[in-house]
Amino acid sequence: MKKHNYSAGPCILPQEVFEEASKSILNFNESGLSILEISHRSKDFVAVMEEARALVLELLNLEGKGYQALFLQGGASLEFLMVPYNLMKTNGKAAYLDTGTWASGAIKEAKAFGETVIVASSKDANYNYIPKDYSIPTDADYFHCTSNNTIFGTQMKSFPNTTIPVVCDMSSDIFSRSLDFSKFDLIYAGAQKNMGPAGTTLVVVKEEILGKTGRAIPNILNYEQHIAKESMYNTPAVFAVYTSLLTLKWLKKLGGISAIEKINEAKANLLYTEIDRNPLFKGTVLKEDRSAMNATFLLENQDHQELFDSMWKKAGISGINGHRSVGGYRASMYNALPLDSVQVLVDVMKELEKNS
Amino acid sequence: MKKHNYSAGPCILPQEVFEEASKSILNFNESGLSILEISHRSKDFVAVMEEARALVLELLNLEGKGYQALFLQGGASLEFLMVPYNLMKTNGKAAYLDTGTWASGAIKEAKAFGETVIVASSKDANYNYIPKDYSIPTDADYFHCTSNNTIFGTQMKSFPNTTIPVVCDMSSDIFSRSLDFSKFDLIYAGAQKNMGPAGTTLVVVKEEILGKTGRAIPNILNYEQHIAKESMYNTPAVFAVYTSLLTLKWLKKLGGISAIEKINEAKANLLYTEIDRNPLFKGTVLKEDRSAMNATFLLENQDHQELFDSMWKKAGISGINGHRSVGGYRASMYNALPLDSVQVLVDVMKELEKNS
Repeated sequence: MKKHNYSAGPCILPQEVFEEASKSILNFNESGLSILEISHRSKDFVAVMEEARALVLELLNLEGKGYQALFLQGGASLEFLMVPYNLMKTNGKAAYLDTGTWASGAIKEAKAFGETVIVASSKDANYNYIPKDYSIPTDADYFHCTSNNTIFGTQMKSFPNTTIPVVCDMSSDIFSRSLDFSKFDLIYAGAQKNMGPAGTTLVVVKEEILGKTGRAIPNILNYEQHIAKESMYNTPAVFAVYTSLLTLKWLKKLGGISAIEKINEAKANLLYTEIDRNPLFKGTVLKEDRSAMNATFLLENQDHQELFDSMWKKAGISGINGHRSVGGYRASMYNALPLDSVQVLVDVMKELEKNS
Repeated sequence: MKKHNYSAGPCILPQEVFEEASKSILNFNESGLSILEISHRSKDFVAVMEEARALVLELLNLEGKGYQALFLQGGASLEFLMVPYNLMKTNGKAAYLDTGTWASGAIKEAKAFGETVIVASSKDANYNYIPKDYSIPTDADYFHCTSNNTIFGTQMKSFPNTTIPVVCDMSSDIFSRSLDFSKFDLIYAGAQKNMGPAGTTLVVVKEEILGKTGRAIPNILNYEQHIAKESMYNTPAVFAVYTSLLTLKWLKKLGGISAIEKINEAKANLLYTEIDRNPLFKGTVLKEDRSAMNATFLLENQDHQELFDSMWKKAGISGINGHRSVGGYRASMYNALPLDSVQVLVDVMKELEKNS
């Protein structure tokens, strides 16, 4: 039976990426060797890294604008640390928007480096909205925000204007919608949603913001070192980078971010329309802040849970249990999830209504 | 044509591991889902992580001895930083043995944390031997060494006795030979030699040495946090951990470390015997310190280079060009390299002698 994989991450990737990655483990580029056993310094892998770095900038429309793309390791959680190490001045200050678990994690790491101002937080309402009216101190070294909050199902639809560098954790919605990416000075994202398998982290950074802290930065955490070594300061996560490149190429072939954005909007509209229409369900998030990636919703009546759970499982759906912080359900609709899969879920919701 | 892959790392893994990994990308555990698209919190992957962590301790004979095994990210280069963060006291001191490029990298990161004593170095002779007569300050917080030096082809055959915690970078020879691993308090290793593909780092640590520095440790770099979260503090490198487990299971089936050690000794003896016998070649390393993993050697006469290079390429050998710091050749004979492949290289060396 066809599976409809709503996992919040690591998550579904395009089927053709799985097929190509699987082949390359047996025979990469007709070399007779596995992608897993070649040197990261081999001509073939250096070409993969170069193409992946260039394609990221191309897809984000950041070519020739002073940005560098890096494929690092350690996930967004290591970036929580690298950002203050690289950007917060000695005795400096940083501004953070608190929109959930990941933003809080970033704030926690920053606090060890200097004054960390939380410009606004939606913690008071279990992060079910994005704070909008706040001011960003212009004497901070940078402003940090999280574009999409997987756990709570919120997404920033606009970003504040400020004169200080803007840093954004886009782990769960990068490459999913058109934005003016040049408004950001540093973007980071764990690969495991829209870019590839778990195991590599994308960092896109405007070079001119680096090297200004007066702080001693450990080599392995220093973006300038990684840039100087063309993202090969140490052995990269070869397979994760390769599979990310396959996914980025799939996206380009599809028509890039503007093309996937239309598909993502169609999926989100289909599901949210049903959540709002169907009297058995309710969304958990303020409508204007709803994420197109992660739709969080509850049953109005818990008595329906057993039946609903058995119905969606029977339909081949997996991964829609909500995070324990919110409960209910979370349908993650990343780039590679087909519209058909959303239709299957919506049909099950309609069916439940009929049977109740 | 069969390839003989002597890559220094990432390197050859067992063929059955490639086959199983390739299949799991299309259908993991008959789930209908790819190993790349499942949640790291799924029952199936949690089982992988638990089995891998337990099997590491079993193979190293460290079960029930107070050790924890972790699968982290960032390579040995991030451990260079995590070690002083977790073990060097405020105003503390650490002792390092300098046996090459990687040891130097570790020393560089440690220096930012406190007094870093280099107890001995073989830099004077381009690291072609392992220093032996040195004393380790007993008031240091730990002693750090590198068991095998891939670039220079040296390997520590014995380890000093000391009362302070011993930390060892075993990236390039872990699981290759029998040692009393309980003499080490912290062992780390990038996966990409004897354990799996690039993208995960193994850390084996005796819990009792942690939590004693009085230093604020960033969460993502704190071994105690990773232990508390059972190696899932953040999303692990799912595929790299899974493929490492496949490789560890292959090793166990083969008979464990004592079994592979015999094979590795046979391979090293075969090649070093030829290097010493064949008048066209010479080794670069003091005989008693030669690595069983990486054999470094030179041609006595550079005029033979062109012919030799064409001959080994024709025989299906790849990856034996030496590192630029040493020149000549480096034959890396990690666990998964078959004895047959070494025989092919030795035959080519003999053939060169005949043709010269």
